[in-house]
Amino acid sequence: MADSGSEEVVSNKQVILRDYVTGFPKETDMYITTTSIKLRVPEGSNGVLLKNLYLSCDPYMRTRMRYSEEPQFSPYTLGAPILGFGVSRVVDSRHPDYKKGDFVWGFTGWEEYTLLAAPQVLFKIPDTDVPLSYYTGILGMPGLTAYVGLYDVCSPKKGEYVYISAASGAVGQLVGQFAKSAGCYVVGSAGSKEKVDLLKNKFGFDEAFNYKEEKDLNAALKRYCPEGIDIYFENVGGKMLDAVLLNMRLHGRIAVCGMISQYNLEQPEGVTNLTHMIYKRVRMEAFVVTDYFPQYFKFVDAVLPDIKQGNITYVEDIAEGLERAPAALVGLFSGRNVGKQVVVVSRE
Amino acid sequence: MADSGSEEVVSNKQVILRDYVTGFPKETDMYITTTSIKLRVPEGSNGVLLKNLYLSCDPYMRTRMRYSEEPQFSPYTLGAPILGFGVSRVVDSRHPDYKKGDFVWGFTGWEEYTLLAAPQVLFKIPDTDVPLSYYTGILGMPGLTAYVGLYDVCSPKKGEYVYISAASGAVGQLVGQFAKSAGCYVVGSAGSKEKVDLLKNKFGFDEAFNYKEEKDLNAALKRYCPEGIDIYFENVGGKMLDAVLLNMRLHGRIAVCGMISQYNLEQPEGVTNLTHMIYKRVRMEAFVVTDYFPQYFKFVDAVLPDIKQGNITYVEDIAEGLERAPAALVGLFSGRNVGKQVVVVSRE
Repeated sequence: MADSGSEEVVSNKQVILRDYVTGFPKETDMYITTTSIKLRVPEGSNGVLLKNLYLSCDPYMRTRMRYSEEPQFSPYTLGAPILGFGVSRVVDSRHPDYKKGDFVWGFTGWEEYTLLAAPQVLFKIPDTDVPLSYYTGILGMPGLTAYVGLYDVCSPKKGEYVYISAASGAVGQLVGQFAKSAGCYVVGSAGSKEKVDLLKNKFGFDEAFNYKEEKDLNAALKRYCPEGIDIYFENVGGKMLDAVLLNMRLHGRIAVCGMISQYNLEQPEGVTNLTHMIYKRVRMEAFVVTDYFPQYFKFVDAVLPDIKQGNITYVEDIAEGLERAPAALVGLFSGRNVGKQVVVVSRE
Repeated sequence: MADSGSEEVVSNKQVILRDYVTGFPKETDMYITTTSIKLRVPEGSNGVLLKNLYLSCDPYMRTRMRYSEEPQFSPYTLGAPILGFGVSRVVDSRHPDYKKGDFVWGFTGWEEYTLLAAPQVLFKIPDTDVPLSYYTGILGMPGLTAYVGLYDVCSPKKGEYVYISAASGAVGQLVGQFAKSAGCYVVGSAGSKEKVDLLKNKFGFDEAFNYKEEKDLNAALKRYCPEGIDIYFENVGGKMLDAVLLNMRLHGRIAVCGMISQYNLEQPEGVTNLTHMIYKRVRMEAFVVTDYFPQYFKFVDAVLPDIKQGNITYVEDIAEGLERAPAALVGLFSGRNVGKQVVVVSRE
């Protein structure tokens, strides 16, 4: 039920997409503007009004920043706020499932306040004894991505060899920890010494390497995965995938979560080693986490105890303030972030 | 039990690999020679002596004609007969599972007589009321390949859209007929008008096209599969796969059976559209039929009645005589054959 007493109008800072992006996105592809918003859901609607607290920077967002006539890519609307996952507090609601004061996570706008006329993906936050920002990461979309990508798509078995690219990112760091707890040997790659140290010393990977220092990725994989790879968790695509295909073991599985190295290229890199899938009977399976949202609360039940007991670690890279959101998003594609990139809009 | 009365020595024509092949194989990469062989399994062995009747020309054989230090590719031995699948009659046996006069199919040599010291893959032919040559095709390795590739890897559902490349070949013609009997809409491509006519008029495909006449494979697929592709049976690789990836439907499946367009290339074509797997949640799974040999007799029980009742058609391209075997094998890679390429060594 809407709070009929509140007719307050407040200013609303927004991150707007200026024009569709080709090549690497730049901060100037977006701009900040301030409008105003009435803190009330209009009568006759089923809507929810959110105060956004934490916004999630995710690689898939790049695919929505380009022009496309194909509806599957859901390109952003020019001149409107960018959309993404975030953690919010309900300010007003005419939706039966949400009430004022609820903490929620789901699809929201890159702005201070968002009016969702009809919430599509909006989960009530099941536990507030952990940092709320975790619901943009380990307890949100990336966490579920890591979980279903490893368990549902790859069915890891004890003793198997798992390799993860972009391994210190929001998803990779969790895949590695989940795979370790499944009894696998885990190798990761990332793009700096600092990230490699994190993988080995904080996330408990067995081995890790800096792909930017390797001239020959095939040779690097043969060095770090001398027995080959049973499971490859694919976040990168292109040359990395090509090298991995030369190192897969019999009946290996590749979970295709993303291909961040390809999103900014006008002409994607060609992958030339697909015939090696045949000799090794490799399964390469792409998945999209939204298909698994119905099992979100089961996932939370499975991982929340391990988070609270400190058995799973999560590293976030926090940008303070909506003004820093464009730089934070753009930074994903140069690997500037260390851990999950979050933007704090407000802490309450 | 060996027939101790037979000490007959006969001449034995053979097809020998002259040197390892790079690029497209040529007839002159092989030569014919004649040696002699005693028609008796040596005492103290577990062997079987075969008279070869029909030899099977299969695209995978190209991968064994090149030099490789990786054991997975099992390169042929230079100066020795080429190996492949064939239909044979047992001339002598010291193996408990086979006796003189048995008709068998399995791995044999490209020669008139083959002594298998220890038969690895050798099935007794379960029914001789069909042409024996069928055991190089519809009732042999290619038949099982089509069956498990479609049913086990792709799980076709009624009303789904199936596309098959190299569709008039040994495997493709069967995949199409199996998919039709599963209630699918079936489109195939091949490399000549004659083959396209076969697909539509003999094998019952819903649509078919000549890929050699299409400048833009993506446009061709959009024309023949306007609803997109649920199941792609991959025999070709390279540019064709790249075009298919642009046309897959949600949760589409690609069974990677082979990539014949790539086997002769020094540098394989790059496949650039793999990111499209993500948006469409595509599964691409390679398989090798030898993994499914334990279910061979179940497969025969399933298809033999349909063959005998004429519900399934099979087209063979028969080369007469071992002398013609090198040309028949080489012809696979230019698409010279119409239907399953078989070499007759002897009809009895």
